[in-house]
Amino acid sequence: MMNINWGIIGTGGIASKFANDLSFAKSAAKYAVGSRTLESAEKFAEEHSFSRAYGSYEELAADRNIDAIYVATPHPYHKENVLTCLRAGKAVLCEKPFTMNAGELEELIIFAREKKLFLMEAMWTRYLPTIKKVNEWVNNGSIGEVRHINAEFGFNAPWDPNGRLLNKQLGGGALLDVGIYPLSFASMILGTNPEKILSTAFIGDTGVDEQFSITLSYEGGNTASLHGAIRVDLSNHASIHGTEGTIHIPSFFMASNATLKKKNGEVEIFQEKRASLGYQFEIEEVGHCIHHGLMESPIMPLNESLEIMKLMDKIKDDWNLSYMIR
Amino acid sequence: MMNINWGIIGTGGIASKFANDLSFAKSAAKYAVGSRTLESAEKFAEEHSFSRAYGSYEELAADRNIDAIYVATPHPYHKENVLTCLRAGKAVLCEKPFTMNAGELEELIIFAREKKLFLMEAMWTRYLPTIKKVNEWVNNGSIGEVRHINAEFGFNAPWDPNGRLLNKQLGGGALLDVGIYPLSFASMILGTNPEKILSTAFIGDTGVDEQFSITLSYEGGNTASLHGAIRVDLSNHASIHGTEGTIHIPSFFMASNATLKKKNGEVEIFQEKRASLGYQFEIEEVGHCIHHGLMESPIMPLNESLEIMKLMDKIKDDWNLSYMIR
Repeated sequence: MMNINWGIIGTGGIASKFANDLSFAKSAAKYAVGSRTLESAEKFAEEHSFSRAYGSYEELAADRNIDAIYVATPHPYHKENVLTCLRAGKAVLCEKPFTMNAGELEELIIFAREKKLFLMEAMWTRYLPTIKKVNEWVNNGSIGEVRHINAEFGFNAPWDPNGRLLNKQLGGGALLDVGIYPLSFASMILGTNPEKILSTAFIGDTGVDEQFSITLSYEGGNTASLHGAIRVDLSNHASIHGTEGTIHIPSFFMASNATLKKKNGEVEIFQEKRASLGYQFEIEEVGHCIHHGLMESPIMPLNESLEIMKLMDKIKDDWNLSYMIR
Repeated sequence: MMNINWGIIGTGGIASKFANDLSFAKSAAKYAVGSRTLESAEKFAEEHSFSRAYGSYEELAADRNIDAIYVATPHPYHKENVLTCLRAGKAVLCEKPFTMNAGELEELIIFAREKKLFLMEAMWTRYLPTIKKVNEWVNNGSIGEVRHINAEFGFNAPWDPNGRLLNKQLGGGALLDVGIYPLSFASMILGTNPEKILSTAFIGDTGVDEQFSITLSYEGGNTASLHGAIRVDLSNHASIHGTEGTIHIPSFFMASNATLKKKNGEVEIFQEKRASLGYQFEIEEVGHCIHHGLMESPIMPLNESLEIMKLMDKIKDDWNLSYMIR
């Protein structure tokens, strides 16, 4: 399998982590990085051993040696940045949340499909071996019928009203930043069509949701209880409760182990050993799809990303939380 | 301190467990048991070393040597049974849920206050040393300001449509049976006045809720996420998330340990060693109140029990779940 030459747009924290894990990915080469300033791009390229550095996203997108571009800018810039890459004919992996709302995402999906270009949401959790194992347990009936899931992700960020997390202009708030993880997890296990969406949020001084609780209920009585926070630590686990057993996943967003407990007392533990953070699995999925001529990943299809974004839109509406879109 | 002579009304599973733990309680004596049949009462009295056995609740209530009576009959009988005891001038500890609805409970409270008799809900969780320690941590600011709590209690009972748990005639359903635990826990930590009550339930074939999810939100943005189930195992833990740390309580309804994790990395573990199930602490609280002439417990005041019952009424209304009251 030939190497995929990767370009990265953005030089922040998530771009750095992704760049580190590129070294762990099969068939992936660190190639170029683009920033709004050449200085910043050059610094990043040197630190992470990339061959090329560009002082604009357009220049990076135009590099004919690049196969795939990872968009790692703040949420409100995603749509514009993804379009820049797609217009240049590149495959794109876009950091979550994909866009600021479903309208923006629909535009990207239509464009990518028209141009027959690969596009995927960087929901890296879903490609982890532990989560693959969890799906296997669920699908082979190890816990019987699923009845309830719980997923929460919250951390205690320091009070910085101008930082990305709390700044409304930069798409701050718990739902967009961490909420996408439990929502995507619920979607993976229970599907994209909840019958009822109940939610509540605490909107803090900067006008964004500092914490939220969402309950989804589905036909047949299944429920999902989802929580997120950026000013308080949560348990960060996910659990799946079925008629014949329970699956528990500590730190589920970056899962490296999971426990299956059956009603009959049997216990199975899956433990993954990895030196990386775990981004290489989404990177390898992009490579796999490109090599096989797929324009989207069957593990995280675009329609599902869109349904999840629509759900987030509904939830934000319920909170009267709206963002200015660029 | 003189011994409290205890009488028990009912001879089922919970009556047996309570009787066992009476041996562990200070200043409490096993005295009499009452059943609808003398045979059943005599069997229970022999098994648990009680001095007297009565073939009717009225006869038991009339025994002048009894100081306090524990009502351990199925939920729909509580009101009638408590009234029988109060009319005979006895202090009463009533198994949870206190009654089938707030109207019934109000009647009991008014009657007990008029007669100046002690009355308390057997919310045994609240009197456990571990929960006392948890309250101490919360109140001394160990976790800063509380922002979110989670509490869930669910077990996987076999399908028995005529058994107490699933039978609507007998007050079956998850909310009444196990729901009272997370609701009472939320009330203890966050108070009795949620601003918003969001809930969903799965109403099964016997017409009762087999599982539920409740989100309560409070002024200032605090939230409680509460779950219960009688046909699926849940995690059964409670956690309290604050701005400066988190408290985790495994099997919180029968808590024997809790862990405090502070933001600064400090960890404190409280571990209780007990040979009993833990009912002796509520038994001792009744004794303490009687000896001090208190007509209700400051740890579980009647008004709080009533507010929780009103909350349950609202939640049941939202589900269109109503019970025939005797």
